[in-house]
Amino acid sequence: MAEKNSNLATGTSGPCQEEDGNSGGIRTVEMLLRLFPVGLCVAALVVMIKDSETNDYGSLSYSNFTGFRFLVHANGVLAGYSLVTAAFTAVPRPMTMPRAWTFFLLDQVSTYLILAAGAVTTELTFLAYKGDVTVTWSEACGTYGHFCKQATASIIITFLVVICYILLSLISSYRLFSKYDAPVGYRNKGIEIVDFGN
Amino acid sequence: MAEKNSNLATGTSGPCQEEDGNSGGIRTVEMLLRLFPVGLCVAALVVMIKDSETNDYGSLSYSNFTGFRFLVHANGVLAGYSLVTAAFTAVPRPMTMPRAWTFFLLDQVSTYLILAAGAVTTELTFLAYKGDVTVTWSEACGTYGHFCKQATASIIITFLVVICYILLSLISSYRLFSKYDAPVGYRNKGIEIVDFGN
Repeated sequence: MAEKNSNLATGTSGPCQEEDGNSGGIRTVEMLLRLFPVGLCVAALVVMIKDSETNDYGSLSYSNFTGFRFLVHANGVLAGYSLVTAAFTAVPRPMTMPRAWTFFLLDQVSTYLILAAGAVTTELTFLAYKGDVTVTWSEACGTYGHFCKQATASIIITFLVVICYILLSLISSYRLFSKYDAPVGYRNKGIEIVDFGN
Repeated sequence: MAEKNSNLATGTSGPCQEEDGNSGGIRTVEMLLRLFPVGLCVAALVVMIKDSETNDYGSLSYSNFTGFRFLVHANGVLAGYSLVTAAFTAVPRPMTMPRAWTFFLLDQVSTYLILAAGAVTTELTFLAYKGDVTVTWSEACGTYGHFCKQATASIIITFLVVICYILLSLISSYRLFSKYDAPVGYRNKGIEIVDFGN
């Protein structure tokens, strides 16, 4: 009891057994939400890396576009991060304050990174499909239809990763803020949590 | 005491006086973080709307690009949302659960929306500066230098809004989860908050 109180009141990093004991369900959901993106990111990455087309008009590869290279890198980083955090989540362990903050911040950064990658490549593919007459950018997908379809598939998979990470951000922010003080501003000192054991 | 207990244990929407009383500092910060984007969004919007250039080679306007139009709309929506929520935050009032959830969800959506707008237009401006030889997209900024600089200014202002909204998301998620249960999963029932009054 005192341990939980000291955690909340002083923001120290001692373990919190009550919530760890009760959160088996959400831990399973979280582990799945971290495992899905491993497969999804690798799929999006492979689909994009293998995306090239050669025809009578020339040759086009994902590497010709900075935006698509960004998507590949972002998916690579998130595949690795998702794998590491899924393995970490798989083993029940006390969620200390530094761990809760690390998960929270890295989940936030990952969400913003993969969302930015998805947005950038959506714009790029939109331009490839539609072109822009005023700056004489011709549409490319009439000539390189297969290339565009494969890029679109990779982007759709990336947005599935975005959905997983939006949910993960929700979980990690709940886990952090339901246990620990914000770094500045709010004063929760003097509040004790009493566990009635039900 | 019982009121705070019932709030946390059952997730009902009664007011929580303790935190409202102590959170004047963070409320001021939050109000400023909601006021800044009003000005910033209007600035980004006006700079982009006024962005057009005519020279010997032709004429270029922001409206010729779907990505820039998206930026204008996103900044317009966020200017309005920021103004409404700043006005709402200005008056001290109990933060009920529906209000906390509404702020949290709308802040999250706003952050993702403005980040996506920033990412999309960064890619568009990057292409305007660099072009892409493989799909015969010529760079446009050699011819329309003023247009590109003004678009870049609008995008930079938009990313300042992104920073404000990342911080606002942090505040609204803290306020929600430090007071209320997650909708599913974690079980916090049987935990009572005791205010020692210091």
